[in-house]
Amino acid sequence: MSLKRKKISVIGGGFTGATTAFLLAQKELGDVVLVDIPQMENPTKGKALDMLEASPVQGFDANITGTSSYEDTKDSDIVVITAGIARKPGMSRDDLVQTNQKIMKSVAQEILKHSPNSYIVVLTNPVDAMTYTVFKESGFPKNRVIGQSGVLDTARFRTFVAQELNLSVKDITGFVLGGHGDDMVPLVRYSYAGGIPLETLISKDRLDAIVERTRKGGGEIVNLLGNGSAYYAPAASLVEMCEAILKDQRRVLPSIAYLEGEYGYEGIYLGVPAILGANGIEKVIELELTSEEKAALDKSAESVRKVMEVLAY
Amino acid sequence: MSLKRKKISVIGGGFTGATTAFLLAQKELGDVVLVDIPQMENPTKGKALDMLEASPVQGFDANITGTSSYEDTKDSDIVVITAGIARKPGMSRDDLVQTNQKIMKSVAQEILKHSPNSYIVVLTNPVDAMTYTVFKESGFPKNRVIGQSGVLDTARFRTFVAQELNLSVKDITGFVLGGHGDDMVPLVRYSYAGGIPLETLISKDRLDAIVERTRKGGGEIVNLLGNGSAYYAPAASLVEMCEAILKDQRRVLPSIAYLEGEYGYEGIYLGVPAILGANGIEKVIELELTSEEKAALDKSAESVRKVMEVLAY
Amino acid sequence: MSLKRKKISVIGGGFTGATTAFLLAQKELGDVVLVDIPQMENPTKGKALDMLEASPVQGFDANITGTSSYEDTKDSDIVVITAGIARKPGMSRDDLVQTNQKIMKSVAQEILKHSPNSYIVVLTNPVDAMTYTVFKESGFPKNRVIGQSGVLDTARFRTFVAQELNLSVKDITGFVLGGHGDDMVPLVRYSYAGGIPLETLISKDRLDAIVERTRKGGGEIVNLLGNGSAYYAPAASLVEMCEAILKDQRRVLPSIAYLEGEYGYEGIYLGVPAILGANGIEKVIELELTSEEKAALDKSAESVRKVMEVLAY
Amino acid sequence: MSLKRKKISVIGGGFTGATTAFLLAQKELGDVVLVDIPQMENPTKGKALDMLEASPVQGFDANITGTSSYEDTKDSDIVVITAGIARKPGMSRDDLVQTNQKIMKSVAQEILKHSPNSYIVVLTNPVDAMTYTVFKESGFPKNRVIGQSGVLDTARFRTFVAQELNLSVKDITGFVLGGHGDDMVPLVRYSYAGGIPLETLISKDRLDAIVERTRKGGGEIVNLLGNGSAYYAPAASLVEMCEAILKDQRRVLPSIAYLEGEYGYEGIYLGVPAILGANGIEKVIELELTSEEKAALDKSAESVRKVMEVLAY
Repeated sequence: MSLKRKKISVIGGGFTGATTAFLLAQKELGDVVLVDIPQMENPTKGKALDMLEASPVQGFDANITGTSSYEDTKDSDIVVITAGIARKPGMSRDDLVQTNQKIMKSVAQEILKHSPNSYIVVLTNPVDAMTYTVFKESGFPKNRVIGQSGVLDTARFRTFVAQELNLSVKDITGFVLGGHGDDMVPLVRYSYAGGIPLETLISKDRLDAIVERTRKGGGEIVNLLGNGSAYYAPAASLVEMCEAILKDQRRVLPSIAYLEGEYGYEGIYLGVPAILGANGIEKVIELELTSEEKAALDKSAESVRKVMEVLAY
Repeated sequence: MSLKRKKISVIGGGFTGATTAFLLAQKELGDVVLVDIPQMENPTKGKALDMLEASPVQGFDANITGTSSYEDTKDSDIVVITAGIARKPGMSRDDLVQTNQKIMKSVAQEILKHSPNSYIVVLTNPVDAMTYTVFKESGFPKNRVIGQSGVLDTARFRTFVAQELNLSVKDITGFVLGGHGDDMVPLVRYSYAGGIPLETLISKDRLDAIVERTRKGGGEIVNLLGNGSAYYAPAASLVEMCEAILKDQRRVLPSIAYLEGEYGYEGIYLGVPAILGANGIEKVIELELTSEEKAALDKSAESVRKVMEVLAY
Repeated sequence: MSLKRKKISVIGGGFTGATTAFLLAQKELGDVVLVDIPQMENPTKGKALDMLEASPVQGFDANITGTSSYEDTKDSDIVVITAGIARKPGMSRDDLVQTNQKIMKSVAQEILKHSPNSYIVVLTNPVDAMTYTVFKESGFPKNRVIGQSGVLDTARFRTFVAQELNLSVKDITGFVLGGHGDDMVPLVRYSYAGGIPLETLISKDRLDAIVERTRKGGGEIVNLLGNGSAYYAPAASLVEMCEAILKDQRRVLPSIAYLEGEYGYEGIYLGVPAILGANGIEKVIELELTSEEKAALDKSAESVRKVMEVLAY
Repeated sequence: MSLKRKKISVIGGGFTGATTAFLLAQKELGDVVLVDIPQMENPTKGKALDMLEASPVQGFDANITGTSSYEDTKDSDIVVITAGIARKPGMSRDDLVQTNQKIMKSVAQEILKHSPNSYIVVLTNPVDAMTYTVFKESGFPKNRVIGQSGVLDTARFRTFVAQELNLSVKDITGFVLGGHGDDMVPLVRYSYAGGIPLETLISKDRLDAIVERTRKGGGEIVNLLGNGSAYYAPAASLVEMCEAILKDQRRVLPSIAYLEGEYGYEGIYLGVPAILGANGIEKVIELELTSEEKAALDKSAESVRKVMEVLAY
């Protein structure tokens, strides 16, 4: 019987990847390997070392390694993918999709080679299509390939609601289906403060404004930063999903899951509530939707399908 | 009686300042205000918002605000100063000192105006001289103006020792006197693994190499990153000092303290072991030094004096 | 400006009081004073010392003192009352009420004398009436005298639901109004798993059984233990309320609050959702109730009134 | 690959066993099974349920089960033994030893049967001899059978030193060899405050008094409680050892380890510094002792040998 530490690899050593690595180590969820391309090997090593040097002060026992070699990811329990490029001015959506598809393909092959039994959590955008790409390219069963968007979207929603009501974030919940950002299908009727439906606590106007702000939540940070995009909340969201799996917590978290009939969709990765535990996605939870909600979800699925066409599988 | 939350302002919204803000909020040590110059107001707001959006997921209740206005720091309990420029190629040491002195002066005046009862922890380099500058410009009593260097130096030392011995960082301690980096005076005889003196566990050669690596620890990260310097471990170090004060823990931490006779020095800020509690520096702990150690500390103090001359107080 | 530690006194050094003291100290919420009657002074000191001796290993800095002298509680920020007798075989309800009323009266006077600005959280049964007694005898404003029952009731409910659905307790919420135990008015429609109403996830029969088990939750433990009653979950519940106040978290927690018109009641302490923050009960949250729910709450209030008559204020 | 939760069984559902179970669950180290004899089955179930009902409030995901059937301990990763009787007035030492030996024998056989790959941590007194008994009866390799005494002894020592110096417990370390309590061999020269040897901070008289108080630390609590013995600090100590193993932390902790030549002893369980990691006792650390220390350790070993004779292996 082995009590050896869990191992988590984070692909992509940018701000999100590095912050994810740090938050994983802080929680002593396992040893962490941060991977970037050869040209970024030294900066990646530098970030990893800096984080490791925080461990005596923060009091965590977890190794953090920076590398450009997938050999170092061998036998990971979980692999988090944050690698990929962001859309640049003048770049078409299809160019973005195809570029990141290539990156996902390469990453998936490395994971298949070095950690064939791992669970994969994908953050790279467009996240539904990229999760699908990793699923196809790795050949992993669907329960072991998961995308992140809803934990982040609801985190933002909860933040804005907590501010609106001047209440603890601990007591605010949110609920979202479908794609990330603009395609988000918020289920406000399943969102609460202290268990009380938000619709009875916040005016429709204000609630609509909060939903709209959540939709544009990523863009709001991009605009403020001027250069780069959000990484603290995305990293925290990834870590919550990893923790649920590594500790077999059976959390109910909005996850990008592969659907085979659920909600009436077939062969698509889409944001739905799911149980995350020792087997990755243990179960997709199906809800009855109002016709309005179903229509919005159809629209969101349609957007994802359009991107999937570019992938040409 | 007021149970209102503590308030901590972090001056300088770069990587170290932002990471410090995040780690402070994570520990629910108080509400955090991150301050930068007007030109950086939006990025600072962006970082603060991104961190705040991580709070529902990480489960902490603490407000984090980005601002360029010192009005927002009003009545802070602690102010952490990370602002300042780094030495650029071609810049003389004196230029660096004088530029950062100006910044410290301006920050000190704002603190005096808005948070006259606060405690100040300084990170800006050259940190001994900059802590002295803040002390002079704020007019605060010496127990309320403290510099950070030794917590970081020992964190690095502990990391390297833990790697060398393959042991938990929790069981390694280090001890350092004097200035930061090159001027560091390590007291290896007061450094242990599980309470066992390191000198009996590690060969002199290896231990010397670890000390030397610690001395150059900041440079090692700078070289690896290629662009920029360490911020995770520095931020964690600042947070440990703040926590000791805010929770009145009476921790024994290596601190840059104002000496009035201790160790035979007068009117100088220098790294010494100190008790940190509700009154900031509660006490400087004096140790008997070997003549070799005293000579090294004298040399370190001499370096600080040389920089202090540039300040021209 | 004072950064001194918060101080929390726990009256009653039995299992609940001692466990509360330990959990408060673990969270470094402040220094803790555990108070019992003079005959129990030594055992109380023994428990406090044993807990304190756990602090180096558990890594918390908080003093824990056992005493029989209220002098030692001077200037507490919060006082938690767990003192009182349990109903013994053959004892009439009125005897219980009057005995505990005397104890509450004596405790309230000591609090008034030594910690006139403190917040009081009451656990002693029958808790609605005992909270009222402390309110009357201390003369404290209503926001500073609060009773605990709903946090515990919902904790039990959440535990049973988590078992039923095999899900993380983190994602289950419950909602309860009115008195403790038998008088509990569960609002199942405001109870969720991952935000999804329980009524859609659990059959009515099973849900009714869970509600009934929750109602009898205290008795279930009493019957199993054979000797004594629950203390882990009650202590954790008290600590959550104290933490919300001490950290000004503005949590929405079911609390026994003094009503002056809310929900149509006047001059009665009753379980309602409330915001807990730096001012104790910041606000009672009023909900629209169905006529069935209102009838159940009326019945619960009526029970409390009957006990209040025994108090004869 | 299995990510399923770790499983920890605690044998003996008294205060120490129950508190150990709670602290293990709080840290989400695994699911916990609390085992007691059939006559205590209901109280054990009651305690376990009460603890579990604290989990939604304390925010931990860990199952806690009470049972009298070893079937429920199947495939435990760690088994903690707290079962056994305490010495009663009029009972000879040999009677105590033989009674607890029988209990250990029975427990060891159950562990061998149900969790043949587990690690065992023993607390039952006289702990050196009882750990030896479990080692003999289980037939487990020596690295998988460990006794606890030194973590507790040093915890008490650290508490008293922290009080003496009015410093954070976080910065005090202690060091002890040999048996528990009266037989304890403190290495004061390896004990520090903030890395500074205690001998330079505390007068010899006071330090001797602290050592003596530590030796009698268990008795001090027994005398104060009047009925029963310490359980908070013993439980915390057990949990620290379990955590080191379960998380492969490679902590340096004083442990009761089987010696085969180390320190010149053969075939005896004795308190020595050891590295605890994924393989249980990874290594015994040998120190050079002064002749005085060696003599004290010899005496301690001699006491253990005397008790071992009663075991008659």
